[in-house]
Amino acid sequence: MRNPTAGILIIGNEILSGRTQDKNLNFLGQSLQPLGIQVAEARVVADIEDHIVTTTRALSAQFTYVFTTGGIGGTHDDITAACMAKAFNVPLEVHPEALDILEKYYGDRLNATRARMALMPRGAKLIKNPISAAPGFMIENTFVMAGIPMITQAMFDDVKHYLIPGRPILHQTVTCSLAENVIAEGLGEIQSRYPDVEIGSYPFFNGENFGVSLVARGVDNAQISTVIDEISNLIITLGAVPTIE
Amino acid sequence: MRNPTAGILIIGNEILSGRTQDKNLNFLGQSLQPLGIQVAEARVVADIEDHIVTTTRALSAQFTYVFTTGGIGGTHDDITAACMAKAFNVPLEVHPEALDILEKYYGDRLNATRARMALMPRGAKLIKNPISAAPGFMIENTFVMAGIPMITQAMFDDVKHYLIPGRPILHQTVTCSLAENVIAEGLGEIQSRYPDVEIGSYPFFNGENFGVSLVARGVDNAQISTVIDEISNLIITLGAVPTIE
Repeated sequence: MRNPTAGILIIGNEILSGRTQDKNLNFLGQSLQPLGIQVAEARVVADIEDHIVTTTRALSAQFTYVFTTGGIGGTHDDITAACMAKAFNVPLEVHPEALDILEKYYGDRLNATRARMALMPRGAKLIKNPISAAPGFMIENTFVMAGIPMITQAMFDDVKHYLIPGRPILHQTVTCSLAENVIAEGLGEIQSRYPDVEIGSYPFFNGENFGVSLVARGVDNAQISTVIDEISNLIITLGAVPTIE
Repeated sequence: MRNPTAGILIIGNEILSGRTQDKNLNFLGQSLQPLGIQVAEARVVADIEDHIVTTTRALSAQFTYVFTTGGIGGTHDDITAACMAKAFNVPLEVHPEALDILEKYYGDRLNATRARMALMPRGAKLIKNPISAAPGFMIENTFVMAGIPMITQAMFDDVKHYLIPGRPILHQTVTCSLAENVIAEGLGEIQSRYPDVEIGSYPFFNGENFGVSLVARGVDNAQISTVIDEISNLIITLGAVPTIE
């Protein structure tokens, strides 16, 4: 059985203009690996309806799950909920449970803008927001979360309950002081014999020394260990010292 | 005349798995704004040929420029050059000038793996790499750069020579201590009167206080200033103090 896959959709002009460094893709990538869900693609789009709708449909059709971040606040540029209704061909309407949460949180201070955050696609299930109340939601295979990393991360704790995990994606790393290109040929040969283990090669400079990290990733830990052993032997053959992390 | 647009393609399993935090999108977003080139979309894909080829074609057809990062080293997972040849239907062949650069840099240490970095799509123009020699390249409207941020940034200095700039994209920012949702309605009203200025609303918590940054972005500085003035007046009306950054 193949693992479930995920597409990530980061929504927001501020990421594309470079005003804000996205941190949600990295967080979601790291969080989905132990659940055995493979992030297959990520897209970053601006706050433009057509673009969000088209991209949501494309990712939703292609992957097991879609995770979106951004655009669910109450200002004019927060159009994600309306876009999701359009993408899945359902009306946008007040979600009574969401309105209830907002009423309890804001009390007298619940203005029209804040109440707008209770508008969701028909059939949406809420994602809890323990930080600023306004909930995210799930519609079909798509999880719609806030863009502020602290809130995205808190919402993901609730999202987990909805996900059907695959086999956890595991990895082991060995580093050495060789230049990447010296080890490349032998590494390619090992990779060709273990198609189920993904071998990544990442050169680094730690401020003092150059070197390369070799990462073996897959779902079978015994096979990953075998690959790491073979890479370590290759490193020794080439006259360097392997360090298993 | 409308400004040129850009699509960014980040290539690498390590970004999707969360092993590595991407920094290139943020750098390119910031660097392209003053050149008047609007980053319209970014995609992150794994080291999979079909996926890279399809995505390159899609972005290249849709935007004025495409900028790719990652996958141009000498290891088995570095397949970007071959993918670009396929995407643009040209053969992959030794680029004599690139081979010359590598021969000068590596001398006797030029092995088969390193020489592989001279393979480029026919018709490619070189992008200089002042850090580790192996050049990037331009093919049609697509700029192919290294993934290591320090090298991406150095290569971009050379890429600039190929770009035809638009009107610089400018911005001004005003912050205040109001909650985003308090200012939302008035902000939407201002936005509706200035369609050529993009107003972004970014809540923050600086460790001590909550507040919101309002960013006005566009190509007409006088109009941006007018928008910032109107937002400042709105903030005052709502009983808070605007701070222009």
